[in-house]
Amino acid sequence: MPAFSCAFPGCRRDLLVIVLVVFVGIGLPIEASAPAYQSHGTEGSHLTNITNTKKAFPVLAVNYEHVRKPFEIALWILLALLMKLGFHLIPRLSAVVPESCLLIVVGLLVGGLIKVIGEEPPVLDSQLFFLCLLPPIILDAGYFLPIRPFTENVGTILVFAVIGTLWNAFFMGGLLYALCQIESVGLSGVDLLACLLFGSIVSAVDPVAVLAVFEEIHINELVHILVFGESLLNDAVTVVLYNLFEEFSKVGTVTVLDVFLGVVCFFVVSLGGVLVGAIYGFLAAFTSRFTSHTRVIEPLFVFLYSYMAYLSSEMFHLSGIMALIACGVVMRPYVEANISHKSYTTIKYFLKMWSSVSETLIFIFLGVSTVAGPHAWNWTFVITTVILCLVSRVLGVIGLTFIINKFRIVKLTKKDQFIVAYGGLRGAIAFSLGYLLSNSHQMRNLFLTAIITVIFFTVFVQGMTIRPLVELLAVKKKKESKPSINEEIHTEFLDHLLTGVEGVCGHYGHYHWKEKLNRFNKTYVKRWLIAGENFKEPELIAFYRKMELKQAIMMVESVLPPISPRAIPRVSKKREEEIRRILRANLQNNKQKVSYNKGIWLKLNV
Amino acid sequence: MPAFSCAFPGCRRDLLVIVLVVFVGIGLPIEASAPAYQSHGTEGSHLTNITNTKKAFPVLAVNYEHVRKPFEIALWILLALLMKLGFHLIPRLSAVVPESCLLIVVGLLVGGLIKVIGEEPPVLDSQLFFLCLLPPIILDAGYFLPIRPFTENVGTILVFAVIGTLWNAFFMGGLLYALCQIESVGLSGVDLLACLLFGSIVSAVDPVAVLAVFEEIHINELVHILVFGESLLNDAVTVVLYNLFEEFSKVGTVTVLDVFLGVVCFFVVSLGGVLVGAIYGFLAAFTSRFTSHTRVIEPLFVFLYSYMAYLSSEMFHLSGIMALIACGVVMRPYVEANISHKSYTTIKYFLKMWSSVSETLIFIFLGVSTVAGPHAWNWTFVITTVILCLVSRVLGVIGLTFIINKFRIVKLTKKDQFIVAYGGLRGAIAFSLGYLLSNSHQMRNLFLTAIITVIFFTVFVQGMTIRPLVELLAVKKKKESKPSINEEIHTEFLDHLLTGVEGVCGHYGHYHWKEKLNRFNKTYVKRWLIAGENFKEPELIAFYRKMELKQAIMMVESVLPPISPRAIPRVSKKREEEIRRILRANLQNNKQKVSYNKGIWLKLNV
Repeated sequence: MPAFSCAFPGCRRDLLVIVLVVFVGIGLPIEASAPAYQSHGTEGSHLTNITNTKKAFPVLAVNYEHVRKPFEIALWILLALLMKLGFHLIPRLSAVVPESCLLIVVGLLVGGLIKVIGEEPPVLDSQLFFLCLLPPIILDAGYFLPIRPFTENVGTILVFAVIGTLWNAFFMGGLLYALCQIESVGLSGVDLLACLLFGSIVSAVDPVAVLAVFEEIHINELVHILVFGESLLNDAVTVVLYNLFEEFSKVGTVTVLDVFLGVVCFFVVSLGGVLVGAIYGFLAAFTSRFTSHTRVIEPLFVFLYSYMAYLSSEMFHLSGIMALIACGVVMRPYVEANISHKSYTTIKYFLKMWSSVSETLIFIFLGVSTVAGPHAWNWTFVITTVILCLVSRVLGVIGLTFIINKFRIVKLTKKDQFIVAYGGLRGAIAFSLGYLLSNSHQMRNLFLTAIITVIFFTVFVQGMTIRPLVELLAVKKKKESKPSINEEIHTEFLDHLLTGVEGVCGHYGHYHWKEKLNRFNKTYVKRWLIAGENFKEPELIAFYRKMELKQAIMMVESVLPPISPRAIPRVSKKREEEIRRILRANLQNNKQKVSYNKGIWLKLNV
Repeated sequence: MPAFSCAFPGCRRDLLVIVLVVFVGIGLPIEASAPAYQSHGTEGSHLTNITNTKKAFPVLAVNYEHVRKPFEIALWILLALLMKLGFHLIPRLSAVVPESCLLIVVGLLVGGLIKVIGEEPPVLDSQLFFLCLLPPIILDAGYFLPIRPFTENVGTILVFAVIGTLWNAFFMGGLLYALCQIESVGLSGVDLLACLLFGSIVSAVDPVAVLAVFEEIHINELVHILVFGESLLNDAVTVVLYNLFEEFSKVGTVTVLDVFLGVVCFFVVSLGGVLVGAIYGFLAAFTSRFTSHTRVIEPLFVFLYSYMAYLSSEMFHLSGIMALIACGVVMRPYVEANISHKSYTTIKYFLKMWSSVSETLIFIFLGVSTVAGPHAWNWTFVITTVILCLVSRVLGVIGLTFIINKFRIVKLTKKDQFIVAYGGLRGAIAFSLGYLLSNSHQMRNLFLTAIITVIFFTVFVQGMTIRPLVELLAVKKKKESKPSINEEIHTEFLDHLLTGVEGVCGHYGHYHWKEKLNRFNKTYVKRWLIAGENFKEPELIAFYRKMELKQAIMMVESVLPPISPRAIPRVSKKREEEIRRILRANLQNNKQKVSYNKGIWLKLNV
């Protein structure tokens, strides 16, 4: 961040202090003013007379209850944003500590502050989490999902997501049940189903935590998509296991039919979610075909249809996460072909903005919720949980990789396995699922405490050490640049070649079906979902125009190299003369060049 | 809309039918499913077992209550958007009927449909209206307020907004009270204060309605800013009158002190609103100074601070509308200097999108609320109200213009006066204020019915006839193009000249203070609110670069003229040959030109 320290030499600390003062000055009223008016809440729209004349018309009245809800929501979001802002203003800090850790600490501090004042800190409500905070993050992930690496590794991802999560849940549940049988632990009341329920909650890798940490360490694409894909696709397993064990622990008995129905349920939940998402995705694509006269509402359709896909899935207890991802993946190519460039920028920017705020809020609320309690601390149980989490994850990854590597062409190396195992962070989804357990559940507080400890352990210890470890192990980093046209053409060419090879062999593999799908898409689907698909200008010309434009911009920039703020603190006499010369020369130049385009030029040039 | 009918020859009607089917298919469940689950509402998260095995684990469960609220909000917005979309797909309709009218009709239909099903249609809730729907529209208006015409005519606007609204309120209130004294009308129970309260509600011109209608007719800037500015600034008067008369009608007596306090209150409400807005505006500008590392959350700061300015004003019963406008006007120049171009696009796009959706929802809900009732119809009262509205508006505008014209250099012509008087549309603010009246108010239903009638009359009759009238009277239209650089330079020059003239005369007028403000802004404010203000590249160079870029893009476009979809339905052999020739020639061309910039070019060109 040298640009910053250069622009404000010497006053960085003062600025930070100011920012903090502003933040505290604004942040405090949340708690301070809320209770002050709370007692008046039931009186409705009472008017507090500030002038001395008691009977006369009140010149200035206060009615906080009236605006309380939106005002406090806005304040919380503002607090979150200011923290994020402040965090990025301290370059040394952001280089060492991941943002997620810092936000949790902020949450802890705010929660402590609220407790000191004597109020009850708010808890991360599950309804709020699943209906408001989670969808933007998942939609952002789904909409910008790197399709190619995802489909190429989908088998591996599914194995990790399904079998890995099942293994984790049963391994942890079983061993914790064994632990509870030991009398000295003092948890003899916990039955097997409760342990399995707990195992299924705490075993799933969390997409929010993974995104927050992995975006900062720039790991290579393969490992990133493996961990991230797993965290997305294990949602279906988690949903089914959670519902299954909760249902069972109510009834108390498990029959063979129940287990069979559980397996069926898994397919219903995952495929149903994908189906719901795909339907809304096609609807969104179809709607965007007609928006050419009302460009300004285009982005809203994308958000609305996706959100409705998520809600519809949740309504039927299907996997909302898979629905959102399917919706984003399906709609994207068609929507992007239909909407204007500005709409695209807005969608992209807005998704990033929204998911960033949601993430920030989630981590802050995690911290606040930790302070809020109630906790039931049991040393043995909590420490065993943390250790088992690590052990089962490592065993699971090594075991599954051993099998997977037999089928993969590009094998997963030891380093890859280590990062995949170590990157299995737990997060707010686990907390929210634990929080969702009915209050009557005997072990709820114990479970919540253990879940929070696991989350803190993974986010703080693993999240903070993963970057040094990646550097220590010299794991391959992500390439910064986009693939060149050369690479793109060759990849495309190889795909066609492999399809041909498969055709000659008579083996209908991956490439064959991809080709079929592409052809079907081009012949039938695109016609219906993309406006004016049949009358588009040839791609070659469109591409050529884009290239020309890029190059023209480059040319302009090469004539006048971009001037960084540092370069000219003050324009010297000599420099000014030079600038004048360039301007004079170039303007003449331009006039000659574009004299045929007089209309616009004259206006610009008068 | 010829591009559309050309791209889809002959199938436009089919498409509309499809869109409508989609809409009805989606729109219906709002009402149909809501009541179905309503009865279960109190049972909490019950699970409906769809499989036949009653005791086994439910494979597919439904829980609508869980997602009900967000789902229905999303459905309402989707309905509104689809209606807007459908409306713009029928070019003949949108040329004659303003969108606002059509949306009200849609609302009436939807409301009727809900009533036919046997449900109670929802009413435009005042809380929802003032806290969610109104702010985006006002912020959009305030942020993009044309400063120059506004400040130049601020005197005229204030006279219309303050004295005009007062005149309307008292004229209507007084005459309606006189009407109520006639025994045959059957409203002898209505007292003077109630009449004045009603007058103050129904006399204010509505910004939402004015925006909706005036954006479509493209009237000249002067008339537009007069009507629109009036509709924004009369908010303070309306708020004070409303609170004053409501308070008085509770107490029953009015003293001289009360009247005096009322006048004081007016200044507190308006100036207080402006002050609150300005404070938040400066805060937003100051915050945006530090966002260079976290570009993605920049737009949120603009929205959040504005919204909090609005809420803070509302909290103290100040004018929220004036706070929002002050906030937007104050923050804009600094925020725009600090944020990235993409953030700017997002802010602009998002404000337009949001205000457009809010507007759509407001008009649809107005229709639905009309069906919802309850109504108390009194022919004499309603018709007199409508007539008095027109008469008082015309008298007010003519009388005030007579006085104003003595002070104006550019006089308001008869035509201008007519459009200003005729454009005085009433809208949802009046309805919401009426709806806010406590249920115990004896005349509430009568007032609401009269307000709705006035709104419908102004939006339908005046809104639909204003465009033909503008054309019939040949009122000057808005210039489509931006001012040329020539115009800009001369305007600037004249400003400086007039400041000089004022200085020579020793008369400290408009221009003198403007200059002072500009100098103060440049010397002190900008330093604090704009990042790197002291180290910016000279404006001349920045402007030159922008011009060069524009021209480079123009050059590219002149080499390959834009190809409209109509121009090449299929590329002929000959044309293809020609394209190939152009490409070949130009690529060689480019290579020679930019050989010095090999790095990037090679990658593009391989």
